[in-house]
Amino acid sequence: MFRRRWYILFTALLISAAAAEASRRATDGLPIVRNISEMAEDSYGLPGFSHITIAGSIMHGFKEVEVWHQTLGPGAGTPIHRHSCEEIFVVLEGSGTLYLASNSHLKHPGTPQHFPFSSNSTFHIPVDNAHQVVNTNQDQHLKFLVVISKPPMKLFVYDDWFVPHIAAKLLFPVFWDEKSYQTPQVNDEL
Amino acid sequence: MFRRRWYILFTALLISAAAAEASRRATDGLPIVRNISEMAEDSYGLPGFSHITIAGSIMHGFKEVEVWHQTLGPGAGTPIHRHSCEEIFVVLEGSGTLYLASNSHLKHPGTPQHFPFSSNSTFHIPVDNAHQVVNTNQDQHLKFLVVISKPPMKLFVYDDWFVPHIAAKLLFPVFWDEKSYQTPQVNDEL
Repeated sequence: MFRRRWYILFTALLISAAAAEASRRATDGLPIVRNISEMAEDSYGLPGFSHITIAGSIMHGFKEVEVWHQTLGPGAGTPIHRHSCEEIFVVLEGSGTLYLASNSHLKHPGTPQHFPFSSNSTFHIPVDNAHQVVNTNQDQHLKFLVVISKPPMKLFVYDDWFVPHIAAKLLFPVFWDEKSYQTPQVNDEL
Repeated sequence: MFRRRWYILFTALLISAAAAEASRRATDGLPIVRNISEMAEDSYGLPGFSHITIAGSIMHGFKEVEVWHQTLGPGAGTPIHRHSCEEIFVVLEGSGTLYLASNSHLKHPGTPQHFPFSSNSTFHIPVDNAHQVVNTNQDQHLKFLVVISKPPMKLFVYDDWFVPHIAAKLLFPVFWDEKSYQTPQVNDEL
């Protein structure tokens, strides 16, 4: 009888431990609510550029999406690049131009189309199309949120629009993940 | 010689058609840049609630992420619900409270924890945790962006925090996808 009680208790403990484990997620340890203005912001060596990882894969443990806040000063732009994930921009302040090589299925990106956008715009990048976002407004900073799928991002960077795809430089981890990749801030056991 | 020229032309046409097909994506037909203030906004019958699908799966053809803009009037809130995708909020205006049942691994969500948030906050929902977002600020509208993974979302709705998980109501498609599910706006051949 005594042994049976212990058996029941032991089984209950096992089930409880399994349930606790099942409820553990990659983002465990990350505070549920965070203040964006207190997050690390850096140019990562890119002129006129500023980046905050609001929700990151390597940085915070998200597995399926990332959210970034980026700022481009007047005249500043991202490198020309492509990636195989979905990417959606939501413009918060300012205006600019998206350069998009919709003919990226050729051997090189080729001459891009110009897509002007302004505050309250959203735009998306068709998967694998080379693109560049530039603040073409000389009077105002450009601020936007970026949403990407399938993190962490593998970035292919082009010096110009006629560099062959096979000569694009792979950047992995991306600028802002480089430090975290060595020393993850959350879930260092993963 | 004449026949050979036709053969080359025909082969070139075939390759070009194949390349064009390979570059087709689910979001083909969707304008690259769109104005959020011109997008359909609706309460979908929820009191004090307003929703815009900025980038949707069923609505626009995105496959890996969705982005929404939502507004809650003073005192208004989302239903209590859970889902198996990742979800990240970025607060644009106002403040409120996230109610989160971190003990959702029990038979029912149970008493939720309260997480107050304000403008410039971000918060995330651990996968499968039941939650509710409420505008607890009586003086101001609450506006936020929502990012979700693995669309289209399958929503399980609870009448209260003690409804057993197995009695939660499955809502699929979600409110704003119901119409589009019948009549997709883009890529109706998919």
